[in-house]
Formats: sequence, C-alpha cells, structure tokens
Amino acid sequence: MRQSPKRRYLVLAPHEFSTNAKTAHGVIRYSQDETVAVVDPECAGRTVHDVLPYLHSRAPIVPDVKSGLKYSPTSLLIGVAPVGGALPPAWRSEILRAIEAKLEIVSGLHELLREDPEFTTAAKRTGSRLWDVRVPPHVPLFSGAAYNVGVPILLTVGSDCAVGKLTASLEIARAANERGRRAKVAATGQTGIMITGRGICIDRVIADFAPGAAEMVVVEAAKNSDLVVVEGQGGINHPAYAPVTLALLFGSAPDALLLVGDPTRPSLEGGFPTPRLPWRRLVELYESLASAVKPASVVGIALNTFRMTSQEAQNELERVRAETSLPADDVVRNGPYALYDEIAPQLKKHRQLVA
Amino acid sequence: MRQSPKRRYLVLAPHEFSTNAKTAHGVIRYSQDETVAVVDPECAGRTVHDVLPYLHSRAPIVPDVKSGLKYSPTSLLIGVAPVGGALPPAWRSEILRAIEAKLEIVSGLHELLREDPEFTTAAKRTGSRLWDVRVPPHVPLFSGAAYNVGVPILLTVGSDCAVGKLTASLEIARAANERGRRAKVAATGQTGIMITGRGICIDRVIADFAPGAAEMVVVEAAKNSDLVVVEGQGGINHPAYAPVTLALLFGSAPDALLLVGDPTRPSLEGGFPTPRLPWRRLVELYESLASAVKPASVVGIALNTFRMTSQEAQNELERVRAETSLPADDVVRNGPYALYDEIAPQLKKHRQLVA
Repeated sequence: MRQSPKRRYLVLAPHEFSTNAKTAHGVIRYSQDETVAVVDPECAGRTVHDVLPYLHSRAPIVPDVKSGLKYSPTSLLIGVAPVGGALPPAWRSEILRAIEAKLEIVSGLHELLREDPEFTTAAKRTGSRLWDVRVPPHVPLFSGAAYNVGVPILLTVGSDCAVGKLTASLEIARAANERGRRAKVAATGQTGIMITGRGICIDRVIADFAPGAAEMVVVEAAKNSDLVVVEGQGGINHPAYAPVTLALLFGSAPDALLLVGDPTRPSLEGGFPTPRLPWRRLVELYESLASAVKPASVVGIALNTFRMTSQEAQNELERVRAETSLPADDVVRNGPYALYDEIAPQLKKHRQLVA
Repeated sequence: MRQSPKRRYLVLAPHEFSTNAKTAHGVIRYSQDETVAVVDPECAGRTVHDVLPYLHSRAPIVPDVKSGLKYSPTSLLIGVAPVGGALPPAWRSEILRAIEAKLEIVSGLHELLREDPEFTTAAKRTGSRLWDVRVPPHVPLFSGAAYNVGVPILLTVGSDCAVGKLTASLEIARAANERGRRAKVAATGQTGIMITGRGICIDRVIADFAPGAAEMVVVEAAKNSDLVVVEGQGGINHPAYAPVTLALLFGSAPDALLLVGDPTRPSLEGGFPTPRLPWRRLVELYESLASAVKPASVVGIALNTFRMTSQEAQNELERVRAETSLPADDVVRNGPYALYDEIAPQLKKHRQLVA
C-alpha cells in the first residue's frame, strides 16, 4: 500500500549511474517517491531496468536535465557523491538548469547548496527550494508528544554503526506495506532522508535537542500511517555514537525494537577497544534502558550475513535464535516477509510508561 | 593544594551582588581563580565578607570597573544574568570600559558578546578576548584518548537535572585537595565553566561530537592533577537529557561514579511521565551501561537534602545507605570530608576495558 508520491525525482548521476551511484540506486529501489528519469549521458536512451534490472524501474535515462524536464519532475536529486567532495563544473550547469526550471534541489553533499552564492541567487529568483539534507531544521526540546502518537513505533537498534539498520527498516516497512499495513520509515540519516523524502540527520542536531528531533520525525511519520519504522543510528555500546542511539531510543518512544547486527564484524567501527557484545547482552541493555523511561521489548533480530556463505548464514541464524529465543533472519538474503510475519503480532501500541 | 591561578576576576554584579548574583557567588566560593574585586555601587566600600560572610572572601567591592582596575584583574566576569535577557545600558559601558583596559570578558549570557558589533569592534582594537562560555569550541569525534588519561576520573551522575551534580563535584574536589590530592573539576556546563575558568558546555555540542567534547575536557583537566572530577549533566533516565548524560559516561571514560540525587523531587524536571527510579535501580543502570564500554562502579551517593529537616535528612541518608550498601551523605549539609574519605580508596585508575 503505497503512499501518494509527493516528489517526482529527476536523478542526477552523470557518467556514474551504472557503477557508483548508491544514493540513486537506494532511492530508486526504496523510495516512496517516484523516480521519473535519470540523467546520465553514458546510458542515455536506455531505461533503468536495461542497466540495473534489480532496481525494478522502467524510468528512462536521459542525457541531460533539459531532456528530463518532459517527465515533469518536481525535484532534482543529486544521486552521486563526487570524488574529492568538490562539485564538477558539468554538474553545476545541470543544477542551475534545474533551478531555472523551478525544480527543488535535493543534496546530501558536504558542500552545501545554501552556501553557494550562484545557487542561492538563482533559487531566490525562481523560488526553487534548495534542500541540504544533512542540515537539520530548527528543533525544539523533547516534549513528550511522541508518547501520544497513535500508531505502533518500531525502532531499529544496532550492535554498531553501518550494520544495516536502514536497509532492515526499509525492508520491514516494505513487507508491512505488502501485508496491507500503511508503514512509513522515519529517516534519521541522510541516505534515509533521500530515500523517504523527509527526516532529520539526528547526529547533526545539538545534543540537547537530539531527542526532540527524534520525536519530530516520528510525529511527522505517524500521519496517515499504521506503523512507523524508525531508522536507528549507531549502537548503545559505541563510545562515540551511543548518545545518538539513546536520543532515538528515548526520543522516538518506540513500542518495540528490532536489533540489527553484522555477526562478521570483529570489533566496533572506529577500532575502539570495546569488543562486540553477545546478542543476549545487547537485548538486555536496550530493554533495560527503555524500561527506565518507556518499556519496549526487542521483538526480533535482523542479521546482516552479507559476508557469509549461505550455509554459514543459516548456521548463524540458528545460533542467534537459540541464544536469544527471538525470531532472527537476514531480510535481504531471505526477504523480509518471514521475519515480518513473526514479529507483526508484537507491533502494537504500548502506551504504558514506567509505573 | 591550590593550582596556580590563571585568572584574576573582576566580577560585575551592579546592584545585585548581595541578592541575585548566583554566578558571582559560585565563582567566589568555588573558583580556583581569584576574585580580586566586585563591581556593585550599592555595596561599594565594603568587602565580600562584610556582605556575604559564607563566601570566605575579603575582596573589596568597588563602585565601577574603573575603580576595580587598580586590583590588576585579568578578566571581567559577568556575575548576574539580567532579567529579560537584554543587557542593561549601564553594564554595556562598564563592559566597554573593561575592554578598553584589555581585560578578557567572560560571559554566560544568552546574548552573545561575539554577536555584538560594539563589543567585537572594541575588542578587536584592544586585543581583548571575548569568551561566551555557552559556545563550544571546535570539537573532534571521540578518539579513545580518554582511555589513556593517567589519573583517576570520577564522574558525577544524577537522578535528574539540577539536583546538585556541580556542587557535589566541587565539594568532593575541595575535600580531595584538602587531603593533599591535586584534584580538578572538569566543567561541562556554563556555571562550572565560569567557576573553573575552563570546560565545554556539552549540551551545546552537535550530538555526534558530544563524547569527543567530554573526552577533551577530561584530557585537559588531567594535566598537572592527581584526580579529575567530571561535572555530570542530566540523568540517564531523563528522556530529554539522557543523551548528554551518556556522552559523559562514555566520553569521559570514568573509573568511578558518584550518584547525585534529590530525594524530595517528586518527578523528573520537565514534568515527563517518567517517575523517579529507586536508587538501587539507578546504580544498576549506570553500571550496566558503563560495563558495556569501560567498567565503572558507583562508589557513593551524594544526596541533596536541602529541602529536608536535619532529622529527615539523617533518616533518608540511613535509608539510602541500607538500600544501596553504598556510602551516602549530603556534602553541603555535612561537608564533603566524611564522604570523600569513604570513597577515596576507590578513586584509583581502572584501565580495564570490556574483556
């Protein structure tokens, strides 16, 4: 059950669509918003399906922004992170062309559109919105409004950064939608924001306001939905990123948690001397913290077994199920349906705060 | 054992020194830096001791900045938060007078000195430093450098905001100094920064960098000291402020924790539906989290019994000792020595990370 699309993306990925455009691929595969065309002179004349069948899109590939305008895009999405960070001159003229056509420009680049005088001057003239997704909006303090959200909230929590929390969130929401539930992903990082078309980079918010930002994305995502899946960040045992993890655990007021981990990761990202904790201990730690504010149980485990053979993955999944007594699966390798069906009965509203 | 003072404060508190100048009083009572004079025309001609004996200071009170200059101050500290937030015109001319005299200006006001063209122009001309203590410096990501600090680190953790963590930190450090240990307080909020003359407002740092900020203040405070007492913030069970609490718990890499709480507080600051947790549960929660990264035990409890009678306080302290099997005392009511002497044997270096 798809939401009505709010954006029609023209995706800018010149000379890199077939190879290096992960943001573009993520948006085409997972976004609720439609990609109406892709800009890449190298692949022009073909469709997305011709180049990358697994993305399940028939969108045409066009040589330039001008040719893409006939598909009535609302927004130009910069679908590649340029090597070295600086904006290639050829992209600059394409972005300006899109601004002239009054398109919104959506960018996850470090180099901010809003700090570029040429873009801001042009955008002011045409009324185009320049959206640097990395920059958070003004955020208030946490207010408790998240406690009054009427739909169940599932938060993905992790054993570390970059283990697959966004993918697990998107896959579980996809399964829920297929099963007839209007599920939305509340994005909290830049890739998630570009895929869902909304959200806040929580880790860029001033620390005191991070729970307020988590609350804001949840309250927003709950509108016209039956289930909110919150993209988690970091890991509660990560010395550098745990505060952002906790801002999501408390600020998004989840009713249930999905633990996501990569069993092949030998130690924490960043090389800190903190080793990976057993799954059982991670479950206890998240539940113990949640219970101090608003109880939420871990209802399942999404393992990222990308670096394992099929047999290794199966063995590991069985081991983790035995260790934790929880449903566990790899939602990419095996698809999200089995895990979703197992956890779905527990995705209900849990209003009780600590008594 | 006092550190050599780095600043000589002229404290600006016009017409409010005897009543409403809590920052001034805190700095005079607790700062390692000397207050050489106070500006308040109403009390001019008297000494601090004449007006407020409990501050234990013989500093003269002078009518204006000009008269204070003969005591060779290095810095003008704004010792009162003006009602309504705007800077009274009379203060403005006094601040400008101090800038002319090349003094550093230290301010915790919301209205930033650095955004005031009159002050910045004058300071540029004279070379005066304008220090808005609320504004954090550039902070890197947490690096693990805190793990290599050679002296014991004691972090105050709380049951809530504003229960007395800064006071407990200052009192315990004072006792340690009296006992011959060179103890320093690592300040993490604006009042602590004004008292110690250094530190970072952790809650104003971008969330991803908050543990890096905690690490930075600890590494700095550890220089030339035998013990670092880190001023805690918030409470691990507070939905709005817990991320900052956790940034300190992981970023400052403590060897021991001192739990601070106010037993008369009926619910959390901000009126959230999360009730106060039992002391035993708070101890477990902090220790359980610390053990996931770098183990640290709660070695004692500092109760703020300000709103209790002497008998009530004594009963409550006995109850808390029985509940937690930990040393517990009110370090203001009873002084810090008894509690410090009880916990001192446990203030040693604890290098072990999770095995």
